[in-house]
Amino acid sequence: MTLTVDQLSESGLLARIFPRLPTGTSTLLGPGDDSAIIAAPDGRTVISIDTQVQDRDFRLTWPNGYATTGFDVGWKAAAQNLSDINAMGAVATAMVVSLTLPGTTPVAWVEGLAEGLGAAIAALGAGQCSVAGGDLSGGSEIVVTVAVTGSLEGRDPVLRSGAQAGDKVAVCGNLGRSAAGWALQESTLGPERHTESMQRAVSLFNRPQPPLAAGPAAARAGATAMMDISDGLLRDAGRLAAASGTRLDLSGVVMGKMAEKLAECAQALGADPLQWVLTGGEDHGLLSTFPANTALPQGFVAIGSVVSADASQPAVSIDGRNFKSVVDGAVGWDHFAV
Amino acid sequence: MTLTVDQLSESGLLARIFPRLPTGTSTLLGPGDDSAIIAAPDGRTVISIDTQVQDRDFRLTWPNGYATTGFDVGWKAAAQNLSDINAMGAVATAMVVSLTLPGTTPVAWVEGLAEGLGAAIAALGAGQCSVAGGDLSGGSEIVVTVAVTGSLEGRDPVLRSGAQAGDKVAVCGNLGRSAAGWALQESTLGPERHTESMQRAVSLFNRPQPPLAAGPAAARAGATAMMDISDGLLRDAGRLAAASGTRLDLSGVVMGKMAEKLAECAQALGADPLQWVLTGGEDHGLLSTFPANTALPQGFVAIGSVVSADASQPAVSIDGRNFKSVVDGAVGWDHFAV
Repeated sequence: MTLTVDQLSESGLLARIFPRLPTGTSTLLGPGDDSAIIAAPDGRTVISIDTQVQDRDFRLTWPNGYATTGFDVGWKAAAQNLSDINAMGAVATAMVVSLTLPGTTPVAWVEGLAEGLGAAIAALGAGQCSVAGGDLSGGSEIVVTVAVTGSLEGRDPVLRSGAQAGDKVAVCGNLGRSAAGWALQESTLGPERHTESMQRAVSLFNRPQPPLAAGPAAARAGATAMMDISDGLLRDAGRLAAASGTRLDLSGVVMGKMAEKLAECAQALGADPLQWVLTGGEDHGLLSTFPANTALPQGFVAIGSVVSADASQPAVSIDGRNFKSVVDGAVGWDHFAV
Repeated sequence: MTLTVDQLSESGLLARIFPRLPTGTSTLLGPGDDSAIIAAPDGRTVISIDTQVQDRDFRLTWPNGYATTGFDVGWKAAAQNLSDINAMGAVATAMVVSLTLPGTTPVAWVEGLAEGLGAAIAALGAGQCSVAGGDLSGGSEIVVTVAVTGSLEGRDPVLRSGAQAGDKVAVCGNLGRSAAGWALQESTLGPERHTESMQRAVSLFNRPQPPLAAGPAAARAGATAMMDISDGLLRDAGRLAAASGTRLDLSGVVMGKMAEKLAECAQALGADPLQWVLTGGEDHGLLSTFPANTALPQGFVAIGSVVSADASQPAVSIDGRNFKSVVDGAVGWDHFAV
């Protein structure tokens, strides 16, 4: 019989979780007291919070037969949050994690989640980051919330609002690949029929790989603005443009080349790969702007330029064609819109 | 017709929330970017996280007719988290808030929640604390998670593990009053029949008042151990005893006097007020230990003493009578135990 969380006391469940959590050098006091204590060597703490909800952000079972594991959810929760720290040009120092769990949740699923948090932190290179504390609640669906802290290491943060006309626009990381993976899991195309590129897309949807060295590198290289691409390129570029009071003009040729990389997945599903590149969320790459004469840091690809805009109409364009819908919510991922 | 969150875009909902959030002097960068930035003047950040789940921690409608408002939930979320910072002897600097909301949630309920966060911060005296960021998700039940940061202002933290044999044990704040309020709301005794003390109990259940000045004051007075009483006195005292490798012996006379204060509520419901004092959670008072010769800071009441214990059997006793069940989970609040 499967051991489920309602068969353990809270302390019994915590005793299964604690030994699996990653430890890191920035944690001055870890789990077990009323609060944790994290080092903040430059006198500032960067902080963000992000939530995954069952049947919204992941499914325990998918149309194509895939079962999201606790490990997947732990990995993704860590990756998403580490990406928000990366996007400021900072390095992650610690996480605190709140789990809302139905009583029927297998204990092994929760143990996997703890291991997934640690595996992502290690694999993505955030070694000083620990899980320093958390909270457990009962509920009718699984909800995983992570708050993450980071250190700017004395640097200025790279905000969304600093893009200047004349800057070049660049991205680092995947675009649209997570969306392709999501579409594959929502399809009836079983994993046994996946090619290597399909496997990669599915893997990156379940276990995103934000480029964590790139955020601090971009900051050191003089990035003028930066953000995490979590809700789709057009939507997030619209936010950066709005925050900066500028327009971002993207290259249709570059977008097309990125779409070509997803051609095999798209053909298998009869989907449009360009749509994935432009609107697919959760790859957690970086969108950055740099002064025109900057040599782009490793991993960044130029995708366009910042152009001046009437501040009342910030926008995103591709080869000068305007995407008004970007900023009013019709394109990309929205948690509540129908 | 009631405006619900599924009728707004995410940015539309955020535009309703942001202006209602409290701002504070410790926030160097507030909502709107990938992360927030909080001051950490002594090079450390205290951090904790806590979640409230609909129908577990609150009900939108109660047997006695009370409807939990968004304002209540926001207040309670703030109060619980501020208490975890208080219990370290620290002062709160900022919160980040994750809301999981069914699409049918009224927008006014969410606006109330934002206002409740700010009202609690102001009323409880945590004026430098802001809501610096957050996250919105859809879900099938309301889940509110707050992560809170704090500053130790250069002091050592007061841990659960520092109690020494010979120390006196003291509490600050209410004991059992929140449990009485919960029982009143679970009863069929309508609010129109509540006396003043019943109203107070219900109010403190919905809007707890942790004594936020007391944590730093206890730290300055030399408290050897401290924790937030959130899951019931016996249960939490058992945790402090276990962390310190000691036994806490509490005074039956003092416990009885505290129970007398709840006599009116208890009589109305045919309940045992001593049970509320010993096992009622969510009052968010402080349980502290001090060296025997310490003059207790304002608001603290002596309730017993720390006695040496075989480290393998830490425990809580009342007038020397042992409560073994305290440490193995049979007494007090457990989120998963049946």
